[in-house]
This record gives sequence, structure tokens and C-alpha cells, in this order.
Amino acid sequence: MAEPPRAPLLVASNRGPVSYSLRDDGDLAARRGGGGLVSGLSAVGPDAGALWVCAALGDGDREAVRRGVAEPGVRMLGIDPGVFHDAYNGVANSVLWFVHHMLYDIPVSPVFDAAFRRRWAAYETYNRAFADALADGAEHGAAVLVQDYHLCLVPRMLRERRPDLRISHFTHTPWAPPEYFRLLPDDIAAALLRGLLGADRVGFHTRRWAEAFVSCCFDVLGNETDSYREKTSWRVDSALPDRRGKRTTFVDVHALGADAGFLRERSRRPDVAERMTALRAQIGGADRHVLVRVDRTELSKNIVRGLLAYRRLLERRPEWRGRVVKLAFAYPSRQDLAVYRDYTAEVARLAAEINETYGTDGWQPVVLHVEDDFARSLAAYRLADVALVNPLRDGMNLVAKEIPVVSDDGCALVLSRDAGAYADLGEDALVVHPYDVEATAEALHAALSMPRDERARRTERLAAAATALPPQEWFLAQLNALRG
Amino acid sequence: MAEPPRAPLLVASNRGPVSYSLRDDGDLAARRGGGGLVSGLSAVGPDAGALWVCAALGDGDREAVRRGVAEPGVRMLGIDPGVFHDAYNGVANSVLWFVHHMLYDIPVSPVFDAAFRRRWAAYETYNRAFADALADGAEHGAAVLVQDYHLCLVPRMLRERRPDLRISHFTHTPWAPPEYFRLLPDDIAAALLRGLLGADRVGFHTRRWAEAFVSCCFDVLGNETDSYREKTSWRVDSALPDRRGKRTTFVDVHALGADAGFLRERSRRPDVAERMTALRAQIGGADRHVLVRVDRTELSKNIVRGLLAYRRLLERRPEWRGRVVKLAFAYPSRQDLAVYRDYTAEVARLAAEINETYGTDGWQPVVLHVEDDFARSLAAYRLADVALVNPLRDGMNLVAKEIPVVSDDGCALVLSRDAGAYADLGEDALVVHPYDVEATAEALHAALSMPRDERARRTERLAAAATALPPQEWFLAQLNALRG
Repeated sequence: MAEPPRAPLLVASNRGPVSYSLRDDGDLAARRGGGGLVSGLSAVGPDAGALWVCAALGDGDREAVRRGVAEPGVRMLGIDPGVFHDAYNGVANSVLWFVHHMLYDIPVSPVFDAAFRRRWAAYETYNRAFADALADGAEHGAAVLVQDYHLCLVPRMLRERRPDLRISHFTHTPWAPPEYFRLLPDDIAAALLRGLLGADRVGFHTRRWAEAFVSCCFDVLGNETDSYREKTSWRVDSALPDRRGKRTTFVDVHALGADAGFLRERSRRPDVAERMTALRAQIGGADRHVLVRVDRTELSKNIVRGLLAYRRLLERRPEWRGRVVKLAFAYPSRQDLAVYRDYTAEVARLAAEINETYGTDGWQPVVLHVEDDFARSLAAYRLADVALVNPLRDGMNLVAKEIPVVSDDGCALVLSRDAGAYADLGEDALVVHPYDVEATAEALHAALSMPRDERARRTERLAAAATALPPQEWFLAQLNALRG
Repeated sequence: MAEPPRAPLLVASNRGPVSYSLRDDGDLAARRGGGGLVSGLSAVGPDAGALWVCAALGDGDREAVRRGVAEPGVRMLGIDPGVFHDAYNGVANSVLWFVHHMLYDIPVSPVFDAAFRRRWAAYETYNRAFADALADGAEHGAAVLVQDYHLCLVPRMLRERRPDLRISHFTHTPWAPPEYFRLLPDDIAAALLRGLLGADRVGFHTRRWAEAFVSCCFDVLGNETDSYREKTSWRVDSALPDRRGKRTTFVDVHALGADAGFLRERSRRPDVAERMTALRAQIGGADRHVLVRVDRTELSKNIVRGLLAYRRLLERRPEWRGRVVKLAFAYPSRQDLAVYRDYTAEVARLAAEINETYGTDGWQPVVLHVEDDFARSLAAYRLADVALVNPLRDGMNLVAKEIPVVSDDGCALVLSRDAGAYADLGEDALVVHPYDVEATAEALHAALSMPRDERARRTERLAAAATALPPQEWFLAQLNALRG
């Protein structure tokens, strides 16, 4: 096999744009994925010679790596499954995700012990595999866009290997405030920050997460860094690994928006119309209001308090009994962890309790769906009179941005102030404090009571704000900033 | 009964200096309590005409109020038991304590619902009872020292009733960083801060908690306040309730120290010597090292990770097997709450597991005592070669300050950097990150291995630092600052 040419533009992320599964006949089936990054990268076109470095996630992916099967422009890394598991589940999703979303029950967890140190070594190995592949695949002076909390160490590792590259990192999650970030062992907290400060530019979805990152640099690295706040951004000067003096990392905000073209086209296909018919049958009476929420069943999404607020609405505002149906789509997530299984069970229990307490022969107050179905999600978006997006903490939350774009007749948005999307949509949403169930119930009442014309006007403004920086422009903004 | 004279100096705290119990013969037995505030107030002497306003806590106290029984200088408030329960357990201990110690398992709690709002109304009523009693009992221009998180609303309520008074508030807990403080509903977060800003001076045990308070004012009250940092303190200017312009609250640090005189005398009494004999028998061999921890079984005290670190020490450093005994005194606390009962059970389970794994016929690695016994605590302080004080977060932690004062032969102190005492003792303690079990195990090894002369020298310096601001001086410092 000929050595592939080195690329002028590289993207690195845990999950790549393609995945493989083993068919019964022993062949590999490739499946292209979607999402903001795939859509964003399409902005540079196929002639840009971009290379996407990603990890083999499952057995099919690993088999593809073994057989040398690859899509053009994609380099999949065949990381040892044990190392991958420890890095991905044991550090990224069990620790870094929990820290940035502040999800720990701290009297009992986290416990940083010898077993954790072994998982941390796997995270380093996994990051090193990416840094090696990127160093290997980049032409001189290439731009490298590294994605998310799985790959925090890559920018610095890559800088050490290839000082000639332009490197950026983008964090899709929130960033923890210093007092919470410092739950991490000191050396690991410092390593994560130093890892990111190997980049020329680091990006976040909102000013709030960017400011938290800068505060963590100041708090954890102290004298090792100086931070400066400029008019619309920040920079952090830090000691270079090789001590050649200070280097500067710019801290940017790029608020990923919804992909209006894709959503509008996709939501008008026949399968979505079929789902709308099925949902209408479940909702019952045509004059019933439809309240929608769509999430992975993730601890940070606050599905339980959302149900509590709905129960309180039915209790306190009996006029809504029989006149509203809540469509709650809670798709399975991380069911390997007991705490997620318990949470999923509590969601189901509470939905059943509400149906038992308030339901009648002709009215089921909560319709809960747990099987992931994107067409049905879009159908619910189109039907929704009110959408509830009340996460405890969320890097962005694209559901909040997608619904106004897709909505048929306008949809009132009840939005947590702790979602990243709040920065973009706060003006026309009904903003709630995610822990305040009483206030959330009142916001649901206000949203359900909103006159249709006001709802339509707000939805129009929400859709405009939600699409201000669609994926392609979001990607180009980062790339242009990086190339200076 | 003649109207008592109005007082020039008043102290307000939930728990007073005396409590009553009903004897079998129907009489009331009074019992004087101890603690920093009792000792502190003694600095002004009995002729100062001080009045201490406190709540009736139990049935005996309430009966004393009904019968008009009172100690001179003490006014006990007969608050309705339901109101008291909701204010004390339902708000102060279940919410404010949890917020300031960051103890919530936030995916599921707190839930601020209608039931919580009723408890909050009780907290307001309870604070109002204190404000009324203080307004009633204070002579013109009197100094009023309000204590702790139970009484956050009192300063402002009292200021509204009596603008002539000098009012201070002291917080004995940590203070939450803004992102955590804002778990509270917005109006309640603001009310707590505005309540404290009714004082002329607010005090904390460390700069860290003082800074967190100032950050919360800035973050939650925003334009309503301006804060200034001065060389050794802060001030916060805020809008007065009656809008007569800005008023200034000074933010002070007064790090309560140990009461050396009391501790040295008390720890030399015969009952302590008896307990030492009993403990020595439980420890076994005279050459065994003694590792001590003494706490209430409080979620913030980190007793479980302390046991995990000890288990790790025995695993990784087998030379200590048979040569060290851990005396763990974990006194019952808040056993009305399931989460505390579970935590207490886990402490017992883990201690038993360690004894089963490593114990031998002649050696029990962990000796766990759960019945509160102050004489036995002092006996353990005297015997300790190493003390482990590793809270997740602690306003001060007086155990860390008492042990060096009482120690017979010097004691190495392993101290969490998240205890308030760290600010005073950090230099001569072995400082640990409370979540890092591996590092804590290594610190225990270092402490056990410390040469006796170094240990003695450090203990001497620790004792000096621990007694730098004993209770009487701590009290006078606040009073003098308040009187200007």
C-alpha cells in the first residue's frame, strides 16, 4: 500500500465519521455517521485533503483496522480494547464527564486510588496514539482540530512532536468551576490544563465555560500561567514544555448552531409524517397541547425533575388535566453503569406514577418512549406546543436549537439557564432554574398558556438565533482563527 | 416579673449555653454546655451584662420556657416545634449545610418544590423570632453577634427593626463557590446574601470562605452590590432595604483557635488516664504506632476514604502490618437521615472488612468506637503518633487544632487542604487531597515514618499556630472590630 500523502488539515475525535459492523457473511459493512463535526468538515469540501483521525470503537471497527479497510480521508486507530475501555469509560466518561457536569455524589465518589491511576495511564496511552497518528499524518504547518474531553492531552503531546503545526482544541461539554475541577488529583488537573495549553487556540460553546477554563488555569497552574481578558476573548500565556519561554493560547467562543437545511429537509420526509400520525393517535384529542422533551437518559439532563414539575403542574393547575400530553423520549445511555440504570428506572417509575395518579380512560398524561428513533424525535419537534429542555448543566444542548427550526406551528421553549444554549436563546425562551421544580411547573403553565401568535414570533426569533452559526460556519470559524 | 434591663452586648445562636431536661420528679435539670462561643463570651466577664438569645431545642428546653425558668443572661425562644424542625432540619441542616459543604448528589437532589417552600417560610419565621427578641433585648447602640448558617436572615431583619445597633454575623461552616451556591432558588440565594449584608461585619474562619462569600455577592446580587478587596479584608457595598443609599459590610477573617488552657487541664484528669489504659489494651503491643481520627459521622468528614487509604497502606506497605492500629472514633450524627445511616453503615462495614482481611490473633488493625466520649477522645489525642483529619470540606476543624495541643509525645498531622485549619496548620502538617486515596496512603506512610524529633518539633509549631487566636481572643477580636 502506498504511503498516503500528508494532510494540510486534520481533525481528531474519539468517534469518527464512519463505523463498521461485521455481517453474517464475514464482510464489513460501513456506515457513515452524522453530527455537527461531519457536517462542519464538509465545509472545506473533498478536495481539501483533510484527514480525520478517530478510534476504532467496536469489534467491526477493529476488524476493519486489522484488514486495512479504510474510507478515504479517515484514519482509524486500532487501540487495544482494554486501553480503550479504561481511557474512554474509565476516565473520559466516568471522571472528566462527571467533573465538568458536577455529577459526583462527593461523600462517596470519586475515589482516586491505584486502580484509577492505571486507568489514567490508559488515557495517556490513548491520547498518545492520537498524537502519534496526527504527527505522522500532518504536512508541514498543517492545521489540526482536536475535539473534546477524550483528547485533552493531545495538543501538548502533538506540539512536542511537531512544533510546526497549528493546533486547536474544542470542548463540547461544560467546563467545571475551579473548586469542582480540583476534585481531580493535583497532577492530573494540571496535566489536563497543560495538555490543552499545548494548543494555539482552545474553544468552548459559551463564555461561561471559557471563563471557567481560564479560572482553572489561574487556580491550578498559578504562577505557571498568566491570563488576559480581551474584549471578546481571553488568552492564557503558559510555560512551554521545553522552557523556551512563554507561549500563548487564545481562548475562543464558537457557539455551535443547528443545521437548518438538513433539519428542514429531513423532517419533511415521509417517515417523519408517519411518526406524526402515530404520535397523534397516542396524544388523543386534537385540541390537546403537546409538551415534548427528547434526551439521552443522562444524569445531567434532569429528566426526573422535569417529570416532577409536570406532576406539579397537573396538581396545581387542574385546568390542564386532560388537555396536555407530555411526550418524553428518554433514549438509553450508559446502561453499563448502575447509577444510570437506577436513573432510567426512576424515570419510568415516575412516568407510570403520574399516569396512574392523573390518567383517565381517554387520556394518558405521559407518553414515554425509550427506543432511539430520530424520525420520531423530529415528528415530536414538529408537533410540540411546548418543549422542555432543563438540564442541570450542558455544554450546548442542540435539541433546544433544533426544535424551533423544525416546529410546524411555533413552540414555546422552557430552557434551563445552565444549558450552553441559554446564552443564545435566553431572550425568547422561558428560562428556568433546573433545581427549582416549583418555578419550572409555573414556567410550563406560562408556556402552555402563551398565545399562539406570541409563540410563533418567539419561535421565529429562536430559530434565527439557533442557526446563527451552523456547523459549516462553526467549523470554518475555528479553522480561520487557527490559520490566522 | 420585672422587665429585664436591656443589654449592651448580645449573642444569638441556635444552640445556647444551657439546656434543660425533665427529671422523673418533674423538676427541670439545667446543664451548662461548652464550646468556642461559651468560652469566647467569658472573655467579657459576668459584669458585661451580655444577653444570649438561643432556641429551645428539646422538650426540656420548651418546658423551661413555658415555666419561665431561665438562667441569668440567657433568653431561650420557645419556637413552635414544627417551625423549629422545618427551619433547623429542613433548611439549615438539609439545605444550607449541604450547599456550603457541596454534599448533594445533584442528579437527584436537591429538589426545590412546594414542600421546600413551606420549610423556607419556617426558616424565615424562626429567624424573625430571633430578630424580634434581639430588637427587644438590646439597648441603644448595642453590639449584636449573630452566629452561623441557621440565622442568615437575622442581620437584615434586625437592621430593619433597630438601625441603631452594631450587628455582626459569623459563619462557622465553609462558604460555597458561586456555581454551587446557585443551586439554591434565585430568590433564596439572594435573600441569604441580603440577610448577611444587613450586618456591619461578617466573619469567616479563612480567607477562602470569605472570598467565596464575596464572589457569591457579586455573582448573585450583581449590580446591587460593589465589592472591594483591601489589603487583608474585603468590603461589600449593598443597597439598603429602605433604599437610603449604599451601606457597607466589612468581611473579616477570624480563625478560631484551640483553647489550650482548658484542653491541657481537662486532658490531665483521671478519667482521661483511665481511658488511655483501656485504649492501650485495645492497641496491644507497646511499640505499635497509633493512628487516630475523631469525628462526628458526617458526610463531609471523609471517614470512608480515610479507611480506604489505611487499607491501601496495609496493602502497599506490608511492613506496617501488626505495627500500627487505627483508632477511629466516629460519633453518631443525624441518624434521622437515610443518607447518614447508610454512610455510618459503610464506615462499620469497611472497618470490619479491613480487620477481617489483615487482622491476626494479636492485632486488630482498626478499633472503631461510635459512642461519644470526650474523655476517650482526649485520651486518643494524647496517645496519637499520627492524626488523620481529611475532610472533603470543613469550616475550620478543631480536632486538627486540639491534637497538637494535647499530644504527649508529638503527633504527625495528616491534614486535608480543604479543611479551614489548613490555612493555619498547612506548613507543619502533611497535606493531602481528600479525594486522592493513593496519595493519602502515602502521606500516612510518611507520617508513620517521621522521626520522633521531627514530629515533636512540628507538633510544637502546630500547637503554637493552633492556639494563635484562642476562643476568648477570637470573640474579643470580633467585638472590637464591631465596636470600631
